[in-house]
Amino acid sequence: MNATTKTAPAKLTTPTDRTLHVERIFNASRERVWRAYTEPKLLAQWWGRGNQLDIERYEFARGGHWRFVEHSDHGAHGFEGRFREVTPMERISMTFEWDGMPGYPAISTVEFEDLGDGRTKVTSTMQFYTPEERDGMLKSGMEGGMNASYAALDALLAKMS
Amino acid sequence: MNATTKTAPAKLTTPTDRTLHVERIFNASRERVWRAYTEPKLLAQWWGRGNQLDIERYEFARGGHWRFVEHSDHGAHGFEGRFREVTPMERISMTFEWDGMPGYPAISTVEFEDLGDGRTKVTSTMQFYTPEERDGMLKSGMEGGMNASYAALDALLAKMS
Repeated sequence: MNATTKTAPAKLTTPTDRTLHVERIFNASRERVWRAYTEPKLLAQWWGRGNQLDIERYEFARGGHWRFVEHSDHGAHGFEGRFREVTPMERISMTFEWDGMPGYPAISTVEFEDLGDGRTKVTSTMQFYTPEERDGMLKSGMEGGMNASYAALDALLAKMS
Repeated sequence: MNATTKTAPAKLTTPTDRTLHVERIFNASRERVWRAYTEPKLLAQWWGRGNQLDIERYEFARGGHWRFVEHSDHGAHGFEGRFREVTPMERISMTFEWDGMPGYPAISTVEFEDLGDGRTKVTSTMQFYTPEERDGMLKSGMEGGMNASYAALDALLAKMS
């Protein structure tokens, strides 16, 4: 890895007791990062960190529903939600719910910032109803999973030239 | 209305800045009130306050989805969510989302208490992500709509003997 491909590790913080905040810089244009986040065929290549990901529903517009099923050694895990906001190249906000805890949605918001030097900063926030739900997400191993997803995304972005 | 059919008006309070709390006593057994809340054919007779209610989906178990469409003079309004908990005769908890504000679910929890004198107390709470969402619900006319639904439920319960 040389200077031009270096990316900072993800920075996870907890601004309030019901939120998570993650910043991660990717070594690719905002247009390319946006595509990797929003085109199902590309999304399926990194979101599951190497696990098979079936995108069962992906109505990418305000009010639309989405549903992914990830197949791992531990079985199938379903995730789903509904889009609250889709602002091209700028922001996606949606509910996010894991089948294992049905009826406990969080709000996931992802923002894309063009750093002007060919890199893109992605800021992800999650809002929960209660501190306990936020802490449950932290203890679920989400940070490791997230970093593995981001590494897979780095690799995909490098191939997308 | 005589003494035996008297019910107290619904009591709406705001225990925290992100919650609503409603108590209402019904002049019927808990078993009858539970049926009116959980059997689609009965639910459709009071929830819409006289408006046609299409129950498009009603998977009444933890993890199941529900979706109602109410047809009023102002058009069709969709509501949907997912069951978090179903404890027969005691408690139903679910997400509740209006199509007009997609991605802004609230948690609706309904509890049923047998008052021991043939009446049943129903306690409904709603939890929101933010005070603004709670206040938006209050300003939407929900209290009037709720009281109209409860009056329709009174009438249905009286017929269910």
